[in-house]
Amino acid sequence: MPVLGQNQYGKAQTRVVRVARAGERHELTDLTVSVALSGDMADAHLVGSNAAVLPTDTVKNTVYVFARERGIASPESFAAELARHFVDAQPTVRGAVVDVAEHRWERLGDHSFARAGQDTRTARVTFDGRALEVLSGLTGLTVLNTTDSEFHGFVRDAYTTLEETTDRVLATEVTACWRHTAEEPAAVAAADWNADHAAARQRLLAAFAGTYSYSLQQTLFAMGSAVIEQLPGVAEIRLSLPNKHHFLVDLSPFGVANETGDGAVYHAADRPFGLIEATVLREGAEQRIPVELTRL
Amino acid sequence: MPVLGQNQYGKAQTRVVRVARAGERHELTDLTVSVALSGDMADAHLVGSNAAVLPTDTVKNTVYVFARERGIASPESFAAELARHFVDAQPTVRGAVVDVAEHRWERLGDHSFARAGQDTRTARVTFDGRALEVLSGLTGLTVLNTTDSEFHGFVRDAYTTLEETTDRVLATEVTACWRHTAEEPAAVAAADWNADHAAARQRLLAAFAGTYSYSLQQTLFAMGSAVIEQLPGVAEIRLSLPNKHHFLVDLSPFGVANETGDGAVYHAADRPFGLIEATVLREGAEQRIPVELTRL
Amino acid sequence: MPVLGQNQYGKAQTRVVRVARAGERHELTDLTVSVALSGDMADAHLVGSNAAVLPTDTVKNTVYVFARERGIASPESFAAELARHFVDAQPTVRGAVVDVAEHRWERLGDHSFARAGQDTRTARVTFDGRALEVLSGLTGLTVLNTTDSEFHGFVRDAYTTLEETTDRVLATEVTACWRHTAEEPAAVAAADWNADHAAARQRLLAAFAGTYSYSLQQTLFAMGSAVIEQLPGVAEIRLSLPNKHHFLVDLSPFGVANETGDGAVYHAADRPFGLIEATVLREGAEQRIPVELTRL
Amino acid sequence: MPVLGQNQYGKAQTRVVRVARAGERHELTDLTVSVALSGDMADAHLVGSNAAVLPTDTVKNTVYVFARERGIASPESFAAELARHFVDAQPTVRGAVVDVAEHRWERLGDHSFARAGQDTRTARVTFDGRALEVLSGLTGLTVLNTTDSEFHGFVRDAYTTLEETTDRVLATEVTACWRHTAEEPAAVAAADWNADHAAARQRLLAAFAGTYSYSLQQTLFAMGSAVIEQLPGVAEIRLSLPNKHHFLVDLSPFGVANETGDGAVYHAADRPFGLIEATVLREGAEQRIPVELTRL
Repeated sequence: MPVLGQNQYGKAQTRVVRVARAGERHELTDLTVSVALSGDMADAHLVGSNAAVLPTDTVKNTVYVFARERGIASPESFAAELARHFVDAQPTVRGAVVDVAEHRWERLGDHSFARAGQDTRTARVTFDGRALEVLSGLTGLTVLNTTDSEFHGFVRDAYTTLEETTDRVLATEVTACWRHTAEEPAAVAAADWNADHAAARQRLLAAFAGTYSYSLQQTLFAMGSAVIEQLPGVAEIRLSLPNKHHFLVDLSPFGVANETGDGAVYHAADRPFGLIEATVLREGAEQRIPVELTRL
Repeated sequence: MPVLGQNQYGKAQTRVVRVARAGERHELTDLTVSVALSGDMADAHLVGSNAAVLPTDTVKNTVYVFARERGIASPESFAAELARHFVDAQPTVRGAVVDVAEHRWERLGDHSFARAGQDTRTARVTFDGRALEVLSGLTGLTVLNTTDSEFHGFVRDAYTTLEETTDRVLATEVTACWRHTAEEPAAVAAADWNADHAAARQRLLAAFAGTYSYSLQQTLFAMGSAVIEQLPGVAEIRLSLPNKHHFLVDLSPFGVANETGDGAVYHAADRPFGLIEATVLREGAEQRIPVELTRL
Repeated sequence: MPVLGQNQYGKAQTRVVRVARAGERHELTDLTVSVALSGDMADAHLVGSNAAVLPTDTVKNTVYVFARERGIASPESFAAELARHFVDAQPTVRGAVVDVAEHRWERLGDHSFARAGQDTRTARVTFDGRALEVLSGLTGLTVLNTTDSEFHGFVRDAYTTLEETTDRVLATEVTACWRHTAEEPAAVAAADWNADHAAARQRLLAAFAGTYSYSLQQTLFAMGSAVIEQLPGVAEIRLSLPNKHHFLVDLSPFGVANETGDGAVYHAADRPFGLIEATVLREGAEQRIPVELTRL
Repeated sequence: MPVLGQNQYGKAQTRVVRVARAGERHELTDLTVSVALSGDMADAHLVGSNAAVLPTDTVKNTVYVFARERGIASPESFAAELARHFVDAQPTVRGAVVDVAEHRWERLGDHSFARAGQDTRTARVTFDGRALEVLSGLTGLTVLNTTDSEFHGFVRDAYTTLEETTDRVLATEVTACWRHTAEEPAAVAAADWNADHAAARQRLLAAFAGTYSYSLQQTLFAMGSAVIEQLPGVAEIRLSLPNKHHFLVDLSPFGVANETGDGAVYHAADRPFGLIEATVLREGAEQRIPVELTRL
């Protein structure tokens, strides 16, 4: 007799754009919001009764009404308000997970903007009726160092042909997710999530650019440590770094030298790619971010 | 002082195609293989020493050599052989996770094939030096019922406008992942994974088509139960079912009726979409498939 | 003083699904429809007057009403009805181009279907107020031969390192588009577009599978000729065939032979790829399909 | 008897990255290059002889060697050098079309960069043995105005329900392509393509932001005119502007007003979308950019 295990449902990818236009200078906020609810939903699965189910269409409507009436101070605060609403307002809903992706725009003028494609800011807030878990993050941040990267001294087995290198291009597309110690609704409401995120992003970029690297693992740990050290409220950070390989093209068949240095030419490969993933923790902190959360 | 938490690395998305041509009638196997290794890798992160790191390039080479020398009996068995190899052969590697996606082809002739785009078969094998965990699955299987789906009796709050319906189109794109009780290498090697997978896939399709549904949750539970009931070696199954909404177009402004029935016209929406996720367990089985594994 | 040149506007990618359910056995038609209109639209561009502009929202509504009231006998006939409507009904509209993509489904039961991912059927109908130009086609049809493909005797210059081969894997993803001689509305209405398309698709597959090939160019011409020869109403066909390279993996560093034959292992590459494009014409026919129409 | 029509072949999407590191401050150039060659290729199609065919693998090698030895002053100049090479060096090659996409990076430090995702710069150079045709362009530039856009006074027919508006969000993703009068190799070599492109891009952005718009058609013409007026060497420009609809969400069922103005909330729709395309010409110039070139 099969049994129902963990289950959740909700509305994924509601696209909400809000324009603040108090004066001449407008502000634009552009989010994709996904909500997952869980609770006393067994009857929907087992006997076809929806008496405990708030429709996902209603979830979507709620996102829009909250955006209109409460505004969007930050992805984290907006997600927290929504998560608390669904659990507090519906007796059958015991838990909510709200994921927000914020699409960045650059200002062209008072009321004109261009989409900034570099990376997407992310937030996930989980509420279980008592505490909030707040994750901040980003995805799609592609960075490259043209030097200061070596890779050697690795294990060699019967299937190893890779040559050692003391100067290579190192490139990756950063996906990062960090967890905050703030869990009380009041603390979550009081935090300056935007300043916090900007500081974390800046530290990730600086650590990538500034680390003389003997492996992408080392760069990863430097990046994670930089965020932990900068932001006292961050308990842990998970990073997923695909190695976007840039291979020196072998031009020797044509009598053309192509070594690292001025004018070197690389093939930017698609697949396969190395993939380096790790969590960096504040000393004493518990590891809670799921390993699967940042996978590609 | 930041501390290193869970970490893993490997080669993602190695594309390997193998042709068996014993006689006139050739066979084609087309896989994308991703490998993640973990173990004594702290020094790579902390002090820039790669003495414990088998290069990801070697991982890729190993995939190709194994495909050549051992063949690919099934995604599960191939993943199991690779996972055991990395842990057994490298003292610094303590765990391996091997993900395989098998791309399906239809036969056109003795040595000719057309890619069957319907769904991708997946497998994940994890080895920790003692036991194997084998997950089978599929993704990208889009199915649709034109009737036998109702949705009513749900919660209504201040943000609910959805109308009840007793006849709607129900469509989803199935992602499923099921865990086998076989954990001993000998049992894993002896199983008929291809027959097993075909049976599971057939049961998922039959349960979708054959369930008179009062919600996608109910359909999900019926689909999961069908697999649990059919395959005694399956301990649990996780399903992720986006509700691919088909909305009846309102043509009343043009004096045109458009109700469910012959000739009804629907708008197939992109976003947002409902998303229903749940695990179905064999009675007494432990829930181990991570909630995040099947997310979109 | 800048001048307005060719211009067109319309609604792209309206997703329309229609269900025929005369009896127990339902039928499903799933289209993406794009419409481009042209005519006396200079004022909209030059002086901000929309007096000649039928809104694109109206175009979308019209697609739905036509699907409801007239049904969808075939992509070609549906596109033709729409193209004629816009030009005939609106004095300011002088030309219409209607593109239809039909997504294929396989039957699972009387009212159940699974999306068939293999390829998408396409149609483009252009109407200028007098004649119809009907293009049929398909895209996304991936096919592979495991043998009967050679490539040698090519030009060698200072940058050539490619080795000659007498047995290789040949794979491509077919995009094809063929033009019909039927131009009169009555002839277009009378044609059996579905039978025609099925015959063309079958001939493309058979020609790919059955041609012993010395180059993808040769295969392309054989495929195009097969359609021209089968269908007397086809004046020309344009094919775009990316060479989906399958490279034999060099396993010699590991002492492993990997030559074409039983058990050969290939790397399926992403980029770059060869791209072969050509038009095949019925003798005496004019070449009208734009070179750009089938590009990737 | 089927006949061969227009045909071309080549290597698509070669990914080439070049690093200039004369001193401490490195420079990065990141291109995707596609080459299409045409000429005396009938035998390859008709009789399986490759005696006139330079392999596409050689085309790829040539791209890398040219990048190494000649550098990449601009997409246009690099494309021109390649196009001339293939036609001049191979007697069987009579024409070449070289497409270049340049991926933009922002500087993080002397040797560190972040991918700038906003838009991709494009160039297409065609050489027929005598003259060069140089097209410059961009794609993926998403822009949005929060006001100064109206839409009314349009045609109303039986299928029109759209309401008129005097204040809406206007957003689009610009694809543009402009043709230069420079055709002589010496003139092409002498031009400052980078300054030219920067000026055109700036004018496109300024015209989008600065135009009070009564339709996207009007904005398109203003954008095209701005480039024509700024750059005397541009003969024509083709623009393809999808209308990325932002619909005011109707919150009236919840007693919530949501009108254009401070705090307005919009649904950013995916499909369908309006699509506005037109060419703007310098007075007296010939229209040569194919209508299909900029389609989505």
